[in-house]
Amino acid sequence: MSQLRVALAQLNVTVGDVDGNAEKIVAWTRNAVERGAHVVAFPELALTGYPVEDLALRGSFVDASQGKIQGLAKRLADEGLGEIVVVCGYLDRATGTAMGVDRLGRPKGSPTNAAAVIHQGRVVTSAVKHHLPNYGVFDEFRHFVPGSTLQVVRIHGVDVALAICEDLWQDGGPVAVAKAAEAGLLLVINSSPYEANKDDVRGELVTRRAREAGCALAYVNLIGGQDELVFDGDSLISDAEGNIFARAPQFEQGSMVVDLELPAATSTPSGTHEGIEIVHTVIHEDALPAYEPIAAAVAPRLADEAEMYGAIVTGLRDYVQKNGFKSVLLGLSGGIDSSLVAAIACDAVGAEHVFGISNPSVYSSEHSKDDAAELAARTGLNYRVIPIQPMVQPFIDTLGLTGLAEENLQARVRAVIWMGLSNADGHLVLACGNKSELSVGYSTIYGDAVGGYAPLKDVPKTVVWRLAKWRNEDAKARGKQPPIPENSIAKPPSAELRPGQQDTDSLPPYDLLDDMLDDYVELDRGSAELVASGFETELVSKVIQLVDRAEYKRRQYPPGPKITHKAFGRDRRLPITNAWREDARKAAEH
Amino acid sequence: MSQLRVALAQLNVTVGDVDGNAEKIVAWTRNAVERGAHVVAFPELALTGYPVEDLALRGSFVDASQGKIQGLAKRLADEGLGEIVVVCGYLDRATGTAMGVDRLGRPKGSPTNAAAVIHQGRVVTSAVKHHLPNYGVFDEFRHFVPGSTLQVVRIHGVDVALAICEDLWQDGGPVAVAKAAEAGLLLVINSSPYEANKDDVRGELVTRRAREAGCALAYVNLIGGQDELVFDGDSLISDAEGNIFARAPQFEQGSMVVDLELPAATSTPSGTHEGIEIVHTVIHEDALPAYEPIAAAVAPRLADEAEMYGAIVTGLRDYVQKNGFKSVLLGLSGGIDSSLVAAIACDAVGAEHVFGISNPSVYSSEHSKDDAAELAARTGLNYRVIPIQPMVQPFIDTLGLTGLAEENLQARVRAVIWMGLSNADGHLVLACGNKSELSVGYSTIYGDAVGGYAPLKDVPKTVVWRLAKWRNEDAKARGKQPPIPENSIAKPPSAELRPGQQDTDSLPPYDLLDDMLDDYVELDRGSAELVASGFETELVSKVIQLVDRAEYKRRQYPPGPKITHKAFGRDRRLPITNAWREDARKAAEH
Repeated sequence: MSQLRVALAQLNVTVGDVDGNAEKIVAWTRNAVERGAHVVAFPELALTGYPVEDLALRGSFVDASQGKIQGLAKRLADEGLGEIVVVCGYLDRATGTAMGVDRLGRPKGSPTNAAAVIHQGRVVTSAVKHHLPNYGVFDEFRHFVPGSTLQVVRIHGVDVALAICEDLWQDGGPVAVAKAAEAGLLLVINSSPYEANKDDVRGELVTRRAREAGCALAYVNLIGGQDELVFDGDSLISDAEGNIFARAPQFEQGSMVVDLELPAATSTPSGTHEGIEIVHTVIHEDALPAYEPIAAAVAPRLADEAEMYGAIVTGLRDYVQKNGFKSVLLGLSGGIDSSLVAAIACDAVGAEHVFGISNPSVYSSEHSKDDAAELAARTGLNYRVIPIQPMVQPFIDTLGLTGLAEENLQARVRAVIWMGLSNADGHLVLACGNKSELSVGYSTIYGDAVGGYAPLKDVPKTVVWRLAKWRNEDAKARGKQPPIPENSIAKPPSAELRPGQQDTDSLPPYDLLDDMLDDYVELDRGSAELVASGFETELVSKVIQLVDRAEYKRRQYPPGPKITHKAFGRDRRLPITNAWREDARKAAEH
Repeated sequence: MSQLRVALAQLNVTVGDVDGNAEKIVAWTRNAVERGAHVVAFPELALTGYPVEDLALRGSFVDASQGKIQGLAKRLADEGLGEIVVVCGYLDRATGTAMGVDRLGRPKGSPTNAAAVIHQGRVVTSAVKHHLPNYGVFDEFRHFVPGSTLQVVRIHGVDVALAICEDLWQDGGPVAVAKAAEAGLLLVINSSPYEANKDDVRGELVTRRAREAGCALAYVNLIGGQDELVFDGDSLISDAEGNIFARAPQFEQGSMVVDLELPAATSTPSGTHEGIEIVHTVIHEDALPAYEPIAAAVAPRLADEAEMYGAIVTGLRDYVQKNGFKSVLLGLSGGIDSSLVAAIACDAVGAEHVFGISNPSVYSSEHSKDDAAELAARTGLNYRVIPIQPMVQPFIDTLGLTGLAEENLQARVRAVIWMGLSNADGHLVLACGNKSELSVGYSTIYGDAVGGYAPLKDVPKTVVWRLAKWRNEDAKARGKQPPIPENSIAKPPSAELRPGQQDTDSLPPYDLLDDMLDDYVELDRGSAELVASGFETELVSKVIQLVDRAEYKRRQYPPGPKITHKAFGRDRRLPITNAWREDARKAAEH
């Protein structure tokens, strides 16, 4: 057996900020060297950020990535960090092969999602991702050409095989070939987004693939929010028998350094297996002299609510910071959605950077105003009350709006106020709508739907309540003030745009609605299946119509953190003109 | 040689409206029978509409398509239309093969983009699309699994090979195999979107592929607007030598019926070529008795401006109709953009269904009000003047907004008015921004950017002027009143949000800007290339910064007709947090 000390650096990088990301990679390589590591691995596309989307098709951006990875290799050597083996994700391009030729149906410039192996000032080899996910939040088949080799690098006598993210998830490809290559370690670099209710799917996958490959498996993942994605880290290592013996915490930037005992390479299997050619690179032929290993730690997984809350806070914090904002602004209605968003915002950027505006109308209840003020007092955010009637009335007088038009007018006047304050003071406006509302179009376009970011966009209403309760209870457990007024959690939800209005005037109760949405939207079940599973026929028709017709509003809604991989937005592209109505069709048939 | 009378029915169908589309298919099959056709071909996915996007992943929608194509076959026979051979695009699913099994990385339910061949009440065979485009406006790799056979159907003694759209564009695949199959006719069904400046790429492609296949090629295409895509028809037929001898008009629903003289099949080549298996189906072994052919016609191509104007009008008309609106509303500023949109709207839905609102502010010039009124008088649209000062002042008084915040406030008060009228009267609001403005973020989010549809979203400002002049000249040539006031075309563009404001205060002249945008956005050139091609360094930096930072605004903009295939929107997905600034990076390096 040979020893190897491996550092898995789960970084928070920014898409496009190649220079800034390179600085982080240098800093964390130094950290790994100081901790005695022999290998340090950074996540998939750590140099460019993930996802790069159409930037991959811009030649000058690929040039910048290629130039920077070479520059990084030289700089590490210049700074005395040349001996450690660095594995780092970057954007490359295929050349000299059939895949390197531009033609219709192939991404322009043949960009690749690659892992550089850096040693002594040089990129000694580079692995290319094989499986390009193109479902859910992923569009990689648009942006990359696939690899066709398995790179195996001998480091201190151990054959380390390299793979990238989806290569681990799909059957076939480099994992399958790692066994034929008799690898001693399979090192996988990832940018794998957080997803709720995964029930430790990732851990199960890693242990299964380790057993398939017949060797230990080290998995390093990105952390932080990037546009609509949130990455949770959760880097881990399994032995060849599928036991996880090291795991890094979620949502925390840092480096996990672990000592591994791995089989020394005794042969150099070559050839092509399942269409993939094994390519060897030798950095050190011989094993290290024996040394005293450090102990590995397994970080505990977070509870469901803590994990989801952490994902939302991380998503918001990074969206604010990576877009160059210093503060956020939101409307405080006293309701549960804006109260939870306010608590999240205070946790993400600090109450002193959160501006809550109460905009009571003539239909606002006394408790709404009280609850909003109470929330402000508990959290310490900046609070301002601006009644809207003086601004609403001139529109009514001029246009004579009534009914729904008048209801929407109130929401839009509020939005004009928030955007005016945003323009004047530079706040990022937060939209407070939840996934249940968005699903059925229960919001005012250009009203409560304005903003740059929507923290609850992918959180169903029933989960909004759960998270609010959890946040309060967690505060109590830590001896802190619960941020959310109990009345905001307890009272029935209302938009308060007309006298006595309640959400249940227009919608089924949220527990029922969320169940139906889960079936119709997440599981793609049809109306017949919904009825068969016990939902009332008329209600099924109504909800399906609402969901289908709300597609345009959903498209116009601000981005928010993806909590499920089938969230509304980029990854769910229904036609806007969605003339298909299951219920209407069924009705016509019978 | 054998004779065959082929009808190419270029229909305007609606995504999801399976029942309505089936009705059209029956009606146009009857039309083909009445005109003596032996074969009638309908476009790609004619039964479901194109593009179906994520509806393809919904099992009950695939079921509906499969059931309907069978029902259509029976119904055609029941109505005495069973003898004509119908080739029709529909949504199917792969079964009984490795492709029919759900697994990660493969579209759920294994949907296929298929062409049914219907005869005597049955679907006698079905072809599946091989090449799944996943670039530009296309995402088919997300939605379909590819086919692996070439279907050849013997009709009245002629072997007709089938292919679907992208199969024709990419090298390899069914076209290449059609030659090995010794096909007498290659019949290709398409839903191929309009694209400006294609310079008859489609005609050139069809003639080239006909020569490669060594047989005549019949190409039928969709027409009409569907969400952001516009299909122009332009169905055509080439002989085996690559001469186009029949062509249908653009943007017009109809059926082109053409007599062909084709080689009679003398053998039945089989086997697998380039990975594609040739599959034969015989409907009629023998050729028809000789008959008198009808003459074919070649419709002239439209001039560039007429074609683009036609695409925009078609896109708007169908967006209004397919989304169930009866009228449109837009703000009339007297400027060129809103004037052109008004002219387009009147052409699309009729002036009596167009509502133009003039919203003068204290900064509006006299000519703006005059020009708007003049446009209304010339076109006959419904005109209303609503000064905004009474609604702007209360916001100013309450919030004390100045500068940019005050400028945006005016645009947002206008938007609240338009949306209020839309809510009250059911109009679809049109956003009037052009592509040049959107590219650099020169618009007010939730202000002039509100609306359900943006006809000029993909039209650069310099082309806006060209189209306006063309529309006026075309009117004169037809002895009609030119709709657009000459002063709206001639005057320098201004947002009129502060005294004396002109676009050139913030932006380079539009001819220069459009040149730079073409290089940076459409051609993906980097800053170094822009500078090398003669643009001033400082201006390049400024424009690149504006474009990169405007990504969020562009995402929030309403949909509009795609004029180039690299338009902003769904097909161009830059990260929102686009920290990559070429100019900033270059500056840091030097």
